[in-house]
Amino acid sequence: MEWLLAPISALISIVAVLYLFHYVNKQDSGNKKMQEIAGAIKEGADAFLKREYLTLAYFVIIVAVVLGIFLPEPIWISTDIFNNLSLALAYLFGSACSALAGLFGMDVALKGNVRTTSAAKHGIHKAFPIAFRAGAVMGLSAVGLGVLGLSVVYGIGVARGLDALTNLTIILGFSFGASALALFAKAGGGIFTKTADISADLVGKVELSIPEDDPRNPAVIADNVGDNVGDVAGMGADMIDSYIASLVAAMILGQALSATWGAKMMHLPFILAGLGILASLLGVAVTRISKKGDPGKALNMGTYITCAVFAVLTLFAVTYLEYPFEIWLATVTGLVAGIVIGITSDYFTSINRPPVRKTAEASTTGTATNIITGFSYGLASVLPPLLGIGIATTIAYFVYGFFGIGVAAFGMLSVVGHIVANDAYGPIGDNAKGIAEQSGETEGVVEILDKLDAAGNTTKAISKGFAIGAAGLTVISLLAAYVETVASKVGQHAAEELAFSLMNPYVLLGVFVGLAMPPLFSALVMLGVGRNASRMIEEIRRQFREIPGLKEAKEGVRPDYAACVDIATKGALKELMLPSVLSIVVTIIIGFLPGYLAGYQAGIEALGGYLAGSIFSGLVFALLMANSGGLWDNAKKYIEAGALGGTGSDAHKAAVVGDTVGDPFKDTAGPSLNTQICVMGLVANLIAPLILLLLLV
Amino acid sequence: MEWLLAPISALISIVAVLYLFHYVNKQDSGNKKMQEIAGAIKEGADAFLKREYLTLAYFVIIVAVVLGIFLPEPIWISTDIFNNLSLALAYLFGSACSALAGLFGMDVALKGNVRTTSAAKHGIHKAFPIAFRAGAVMGLSAVGLGVLGLSVVYGIGVARGLDALTNLTIILGFSFGASALALFAKAGGGIFTKTADISADLVGKVELSIPEDDPRNPAVIADNVGDNVGDVAGMGADMIDSYIASLVAAMILGQALSATWGAKMMHLPFILAGLGILASLLGVAVTRISKKGDPGKALNMGTYITCAVFAVLTLFAVTYLEYPFEIWLATVTGLVAGIVIGITSDYFTSINRPPVRKTAEASTTGTATNIITGFSYGLASVLPPLLGIGIATTIAYFVYGFFGIGVAAFGMLSVVGHIVANDAYGPIGDNAKGIAEQSGETEGVVEILDKLDAAGNTTKAISKGFAIGAAGLTVISLLAAYVETVASKVGQHAAEELAFSLMNPYVLLGVFVGLAMPPLFSALVMLGVGRNASRMIEEIRRQFREIPGLKEAKEGVRPDYAACVDIATKGALKELMLPSVLSIVVTIIIGFLPGYLAGYQAGIEALGGYLAGSIFSGLVFALLMANSGGLWDNAKKYIEAGALGGTGSDAHKAAVVGDTVGDPFKDTAGPSLNTQICVMGLVANLIAPLILLLLLV
Repeated sequence: MEWLLAPISALISIVAVLYLFHYVNKQDSGNKKMQEIAGAIKEGADAFLKREYLTLAYFVIIVAVVLGIFLPEPIWISTDIFNNLSLALAYLFGSACSALAGLFGMDVALKGNVRTTSAAKHGIHKAFPIAFRAGAVMGLSAVGLGVLGLSVVYGIGVARGLDALTNLTIILGFSFGASALALFAKAGGGIFTKTADISADLVGKVELSIPEDDPRNPAVIADNVGDNVGDVAGMGADMIDSYIASLVAAMILGQALSATWGAKMMHLPFILAGLGILASLLGVAVTRISKKGDPGKALNMGTYITCAVFAVLTLFAVTYLEYPFEIWLATVTGLVAGIVIGITSDYFTSINRPPVRKTAEASTTGTATNIITGFSYGLASVLPPLLGIGIATTIAYFVYGFFGIGVAAFGMLSVVGHIVANDAYGPIGDNAKGIAEQSGETEGVVEILDKLDAAGNTTKAISKGFAIGAAGLTVISLLAAYVETVASKVGQHAAEELAFSLMNPYVLLGVFVGLAMPPLFSALVMLGVGRNASRMIEEIRRQFREIPGLKEAKEGVRPDYAACVDIATKGALKELMLPSVLSIVVTIIIGFLPGYLAGYQAGIEALGGYLAGSIFSGLVFALLMANSGGLWDNAKKYIEAGALGGTGSDAHKAAVVGDTVGDPFKDTAGPSLNTQICVMGLVANLIAPLILLLLLV
Repeated sequence: MEWLLAPISALISIVAVLYLFHYVNKQDSGNKKMQEIAGAIKEGADAFLKREYLTLAYFVIIVAVVLGIFLPEPIWISTDIFNNLSLALAYLFGSACSALAGLFGMDVALKGNVRTTSAAKHGIHKAFPIAFRAGAVMGLSAVGLGVLGLSVVYGIGVARGLDALTNLTIILGFSFGASALALFAKAGGGIFTKTADISADLVGKVELSIPEDDPRNPAVIADNVGDNVGDVAGMGADMIDSYIASLVAAMILGQALSATWGAKMMHLPFILAGLGILASLLGVAVTRISKKGDPGKALNMGTYITCAVFAVLTLFAVTYLEYPFEIWLATVTGLVAGIVIGITSDYFTSINRPPVRKTAEASTTGTATNIITGFSYGLASVLPPLLGIGIATTIAYFVYGFFGIGVAAFGMLSVVGHIVANDAYGPIGDNAKGIAEQSGETEGVVEILDKLDAAGNTTKAISKGFAIGAAGLTVISLLAAYVETVASKVGQHAAEELAFSLMNPYVLLGVFVGLAMPPLFSALVMLGVGRNASRMIEEIRRQFREIPGLKEAKEGVRPDYAACVDIATKGALKELMLPSVLSIVVTIIIGFLPGYLAGYQAGIEALGGYLAGSIFSGLVFALLMANSGGLWDNAKKYIEAGALGGTGSDAHKAAVVGDTVGDPFKDTAGPSLNTQICVMGLVANLIAPLILLLLLV
């Protein structure tokens, strides 16, 4: 019953969340002007999420019905129809947990924004804990809800006396629910946020040369809404979907060792999850700063402490519960890889390093050279993390086979509660600064909030390293889990025939299609942003043209913020469907079509190759887009800080365009790719038994 | 002795080349002004190539020595030291053939340029054959020299009574020589051409709003030189290196069937090469236009005729020489795949299709939306060709196993003589137009040359499809050849252990590193272009600032063209080294380091995975870069043709930046990637026996 550590820790974390929520909520919510702005942001964000979830509800219900009909076995041959019901419900439950975590996290972020702004009047040491704890609510509630939900589903299966494989399929349903919703939320939020951001920047900064977050800009509220629905809710969803998927993959790989270990290895991920939550709680508790403290250092210190505590706790647990010592090594491999990948990635996006500096310098010879230079460094930046993932995979494999890879992936993700807290802190600080600027706060307050905002960027490197490294290892474990799932159905001998060799034509065919999926997905969401932004730019220009006195900032003249929020919302909901649905549907086609044409083996092999291909190009593009986007952003900030002619110079104009190109790279397409390949991996795991069942005749 | 068809056809093609050269040479070489400009271009081009080849000579000699020491067996254990000498000489010979084809092709292109301009005064039907036949000299001489050289090397081996495997290793040396030189030439030429192009455009078009090819622009000659050293010499090298590599790969795969077929299958590629040359000659002979003819149609018709003739000849040969009918199917699979890939790629870059139109429309909302939209369509464009390559590979495999893939790849490339003729026609037409504009010809002449230039673009789609499809299949055959090479050394049983499974950690490690190589290479060459362009932009600005009367086009005032040519030359030579050498060195490290640490099997597996990874990301980026670059170019042309405000509008300015970003994509990094992955495949094939020899103890 050691696995109960997970739900118990999850409950503790939910109690902590309630306390932190109470803490944030009781802070001063600012003056009337601040509240007005915050109110407008909240209104827009709520409206968007409500419409998004209502739209997705149809989709979720349809998928639940389809899942219930076909899985774990088609109902017409099902031995126990209650299993089908369970899987459908688990899927719905997973979607609900993911949606709830997003909603709740965003709600507290919106509360946190304005309270941080207000507290900044009393110094940085008052403002920092509000922003950080609001972020922690997001991180801890997502982890808590995820683990608790998964434990409930698993516990019910155990209580019903289900065999482990069936129970794992039902859990896959839960994970698929959480990930599919995350994919939609990420794509939708990403399209929303960048539509608003790009439009606001292009008309405001470039065409009219008015500052960022200027209240005259009709898109400014939509932009702030976007930060919340895209960055907070979406980014949390991204991490959590890897987290749950990686937990499930590790369980499947642990179950494959059941002949020797019984349920012991399958339960290990629960134990790691429980310990990770406890370590994250401690990390959250110790993250604070003194009056003159450096928030960036405090955040990173919190991460290091969390990781160290987790490593120590795991060492004790592994010893006490008599797991092989290698398990601990695999866990630490993941943890170290995450940090190392983060630190090397940091080189490419840090404002103090050559890539950003050279990109800024290239801006002096024009926009095109800025773009080419930034993109080139982005291309180069894929090497260190890919090498890191490759080496971590190899080490983990030699430590404990496929299960070692699964444990390494989950080891990296165990502390995700704390990582998400750090990451959600960023947009909260950013928004707080925006509110201060729009409500006309003093320069001192803006300066303090600027420091908070900047600290968010310094921690981004490490949390991004975790996100990408973890996604890489998670999807490799999903691939391994897929192979194990197949092996468990066809028997070991037949499984050896399925070597997933690169020299197998079906595998290669699958790889080639899989390779195209992440670029295709990126293309569709970015074109969505482009189309949407075109509409919004027209609207902003129209308002400046038609509302008298707006441009001149005449007293009492206000733009029509709601019109922009509305455009972003409608557009995002329209554009998110095709890429997300395609990711699921093509996966199913690749599994069944070659199988139907050339026998189940062809389908299984093509699907395995397809997964691998999607991992390969998914990782490359996720890294390329995240890093080039980040470095364009910082090249612009470097110039804005006074270098190379400063704000308003030609170099600055070029850098602004680079930053705008990078926006959908780093905030729309890039981070969605992790979720996309994760969803594809889960779908493959879900349908593998079905392919075998229907075609292995 | 059927294989002698290849050298005989090659000799015929060389005779044809001499005739065509004579034909081009005897045409009117234009008035004094034209000759002056052409002379300046020739001077710059010769200077560049001379310095490039001299620099590369050191590298080539060092590599030849190293090869001679280690291969086919290290000299300290070599049974016949004459084999080592042969291999080193074959490598040198390959480099020389590649360099010679480039030099000769460029020389005739330079002659063709000005003669086409001059002939345009007498109508399009007079100008067209000159441009096309000058291009044909390039295509046929490259194919002729390549096949003849390879036949000589093979024939010497046969005459010396070498066993087939050793002889194939020596031939690999020849192919490696040709490809490595092509890689350097492609990277160097690509950096040169885009340095000049970007600098000329950014200062000329964007900053000073003077037209393209304006003689006031100090970079205009360098730009024209670049078209020749980059597009003509480089692009020819690109195709020819795939051509020879694919021939060698098919021979290795044919040799693997020697137990059943003797040398018959190994000789098949020679027969296909011979027939392909004959078909190409016929295609060249029938490509002509009437007085009012459409050059684009004529070029495409020539391609279709060549392909049809080749298919028919092959059918006869296969029947007459009693090859299995499946061989013909595999050949045709390659041929059809090439055309289909070309036509689908055309959709994404054609000026009449949505991708280009939408990108042009996006330009009206600014530079950033132009870039995002174009890049997104580029991302989406990778799907059809990847699917095409995947399906062609699968079909070819089922038709005749690995050898089927090799035959399909070479089937696609057999007609490359004609394809290169079409492709080299493009820059010749382009240059002819440039010369007309600079020498102040009448509008009628410029218009005719504009038509010739535009026709080059319409054929580009198909020839690009061939280039990418062929590179894909070629490198897959090189991977298969690598596996066969290993199998032939370790024996079939041990080879089965080396399944190159995606679930093998060394394979995965190799894949991850391999994935990073094409992006890294692209990054290095594009950063090279950026650095170089920055230097040249400063120089152009200086000249406009410091040379009195230059900007105002005062009579007799001329810019210092040579200074720009010099900057481009020095920069290109400096920047081409690191990426090219890295591609070779990392391949060797991946083969030996894991092998050294964990036994030969680890090295062999990691290297196989590495090759596969490089194919995966290499194809994705080659497609992405070629297509997005092409569509940005056409979006600009679409606006220049009068749409969306036409030249000078804000949309046009945005589209010019997009085009400039696309320039190094489509002309520097993109096309070099084919060559890069080809070189990596050849290196892997060369060192595989060495890894086994040194580590299999």
